[in-house]
Amino acid sequence: MEGNGIQVAKLEEKKLKQYEDEVSHLALDIGGSLIKVVYFSSSSCCSSDDEQHGFLKDGIDASSGNLNYRVLTGRLHFLKFETSKISECIKFLSSKRLQHYGHQDGEAPASEKRIVKATGGGAFKFADLFKEKLGIVLDKVDEMRSLVAGANFLLKAVQHEAFTYMDGQKEYVQIDHRDLYPYLLVNIGSGVSMIKVDGDNEFQRISGTSVGGGTFGGLGKLLTKCKSFDELLELSRQGNNRVIDMLVGDIYGGMDYSKIGLSSTAIASSFGKAISENKELEDYRAEDIARSLLRMISNNIGQIAYLNALRFGLKRIFFGGFFIRGHAYTMDTISVAVNFWSKGEAKALFLHHEGFLGALGAFLSYEKNAFTDFTHQFMEQHSSKSESSCSTGNGFESLTCDDVKDSGFIECRVQVRN
Amino acid sequence: MEGNGIQVAKLEEKKLKQYEDEVSHLALDIGGSLIKVVYFSSSSCCSSDDEQHGFLKDGIDASSGNLNYRVLTGRLHFLKFETSKISECIKFLSSKRLQHYGHQDGEAPASEKRIVKATGGGAFKFADLFKEKLGIVLDKVDEMRSLVAGANFLLKAVQHEAFTYMDGQKEYVQIDHRDLYPYLLVNIGSGVSMIKVDGDNEFQRISGTSVGGGTFGGLGKLLTKCKSFDELLELSRQGNNRVIDMLVGDIYGGMDYSKIGLSSTAIASSFGKAISENKELEDYRAEDIARSLLRMISNNIGQIAYLNALRFGLKRIFFGGFFIRGHAYTMDTISVAVNFWSKGEAKALFLHHEGFLGALGAFLSYEKNAFTDFTHQFMEQHSSKSESSCSTGNGFESLTCDDVKDSGFIECRVQVRN
Repeated sequence: MEGNGIQVAKLEEKKLKQYEDEVSHLALDIGGSLIKVVYFSSSSCCSSDDEQHGFLKDGIDASSGNLNYRVLTGRLHFLKFETSKISECIKFLSSKRLQHYGHQDGEAPASEKRIVKATGGGAFKFADLFKEKLGIVLDKVDEMRSLVAGANFLLKAVQHEAFTYMDGQKEYVQIDHRDLYPYLLVNIGSGVSMIKVDGDNEFQRISGTSVGGGTFGGLGKLLTKCKSFDELLELSRQGNNRVIDMLVGDIYGGMDYSKIGLSSTAIASSFGKAISENKELEDYRAEDIARSLLRMISNNIGQIAYLNALRFGLKRIFFGGFFIRGHAYTMDTISVAVNFWSKGEAKALFLHHEGFLGALGAFLSYEKNAFTDFTHQFMEQHSSKSESSCSTGNGFESLTCDDVKDSGFIECRVQVRN
Repeated sequence: MEGNGIQVAKLEEKKLKQYEDEVSHLALDIGGSLIKVVYFSSSSCCSSDDEQHGFLKDGIDASSGNLNYRVLTGRLHFLKFETSKISECIKFLSSKRLQHYGHQDGEAPASEKRIVKATGGGAFKFADLFKEKLGIVLDKVDEMRSLVAGANFLLKAVQHEAFTYMDGQKEYVQIDHRDLYPYLLVNIGSGVSMIKVDGDNEFQRISGTSVGGGTFGGLGKLLTKCKSFDELLELSRQGNNRVIDMLVGDIYGGMDYSKIGLSSTAIASSFGKAISENKELEDYRAEDIARSLLRMISNNIGQIAYLNALRFGLKRIFFGGFFIRGHAYTMDTISVAVNFWSKGEAKALFLHHEGFLGALGAFLSYEKNAFTDFTHQFMEQHSSKSESSCSTGNGFESLTCDDVKDSGFIECRVQVRN
């Protein structure tokens, strides 16, 4: 769909050589359209601050006093590849020897049975391929469980993870950990899952819709000949949905239908003008088509999400998944939809690491095996540190949270079993 | 969008001449895509049965004993035109002199101020045009009020009006008039309105979606170059949605995601396959595109409708509007969606005169002016008569209810003020 992940991967390639043997642990989320990769690397090579960034080779977890564990400080990396180009992902993992950093099965010789946590349907579909090409066994983690674990982790551990977006204004939301549950998690990948989250590992997939990111990308490609999802999003920035959408005012002769609260500019029928206009597909600007499509889908998801939140009395709705990509108009439309249908009672919340919930959740599932107290360490670090604890980056350049769209890293400290 | 209404109109044209001066009362519903026309004509010329079909020129309403009223037996006709070709509608009304059969304003000379009840946004948008071309004043009736009045009337007055449709099986539902309310009315026109109906004139528009008939027609036209809505529907009959939709099995390597109740054939992402396949729009069959589109939209409407019904504890959901057109796959998909999301608790119900709810409601609003006890008469007739009381027809050939798609007539008896 787009090569952003690949570009980042290439950037990483040069730098990784400096400390590739310090990379440890890797998890995958193989969805219908994208493969999301999360891996941890120590980053002593890149920092002058041993306390913050150093690789404490023989560090002992002082808080637990447990000699069986070492504390590593480093970076959690986020990459993505297109599922249809899975060979690129495999090539990358192979060239980086990342497959060596999964968990090693205690019963098998190291070279024989490397286990990598993986979620998403592709963990089933491509299990044989990964075994054959990389010699690794994908240890399947339930998709919904991973999404929830990833979201819970981010909401608790990362400062400035959640925010609202309305009229172009981003506003960070501080989440009180004691008042996080229940909430609705809406993960917009190719399709959309809506999950009621009641606790650390308590959740239920209550709804979903097939009108998601795959619909935007698929219909968008057919209608505009755009080659990539990001190109489509870019086009939509320049578009005007009123060219193709039938507005209330188009039906009511420019008037509002105020009795039922519909303004003349409200969309009565998405793509409705195309029926009667004497135009072919080629007569419409790709920008306008992309805009109408984005608005139709974002609005629809916002509406269905709100109805489900209402059904279960959930006050907070978090939207994640790779559909959003920090795109202003997408977030704005979802926010407006939730605001409109809830009559201002509910607000849409977005997540910085929106696309990596599942991969992160799978990564965290190593906890019982290799990492212990991982979440705790993460949380400790982030809650005790200043805002810079959330400093993230694209490649190896230090950037603020705001700059990170879909790939990058989080600086963190983990505790690993010796 | 399609010329069906026109064809019927042409059929009518020949026959109407036989008794055009016996036509009385006309109402319009001018929507974003279609104009729906309902008018009453006595049908003495076409029947040998005076009791059933005759025009009782000096009939007296025996039940009320009121000498100010005459009882007319005849037919209520249903026609449609495309809104973008409104001149055809005006020409038809003019040639049939139908505009003379609206209500005459008591204060103005007959020739000067004919009033015709009209609903839909076009009653506002085209008011001047109707005044100029036909010399009639459109008396605007609220759109939601009209839809509700039309639906209530049909559900009470017409036998075999409501039915379920599942796996190709149509099943009539007998509605107990005392147990009709509350219900959810989902009117799928260009856009979709969802109305909670609590009584004869008690209702609230609680929701809606812009993804409706206009979206199917608009996107369908852009994607397939189909010229008409009905052509698109016809195409969809031959299509296979699995060609373009991304199924759960496509992601999960052919497996179900049984843990959350999704079979391998469930649609994970509508049009999701088009993202990654190396195909252009032209490489897909129009049939498959039409099928995916129809399924996406029908399923989405079914889901949103169910969520709204659940919200207000409404057991019955009636689907109307010109999107459906008695099309088997559309009804089947909506039924499956409601069944799936409600876990079998709710059922979708359809209406025979689905497309004419608004026009019928506007027609019924003459009650206080020219017709009295119209509903009562209708109900009386239908409840006291055998099944044939619901006999309807396309043009002038007598057909059963099942044959009537979107135009035709109902035989009925009305009481008019002298």
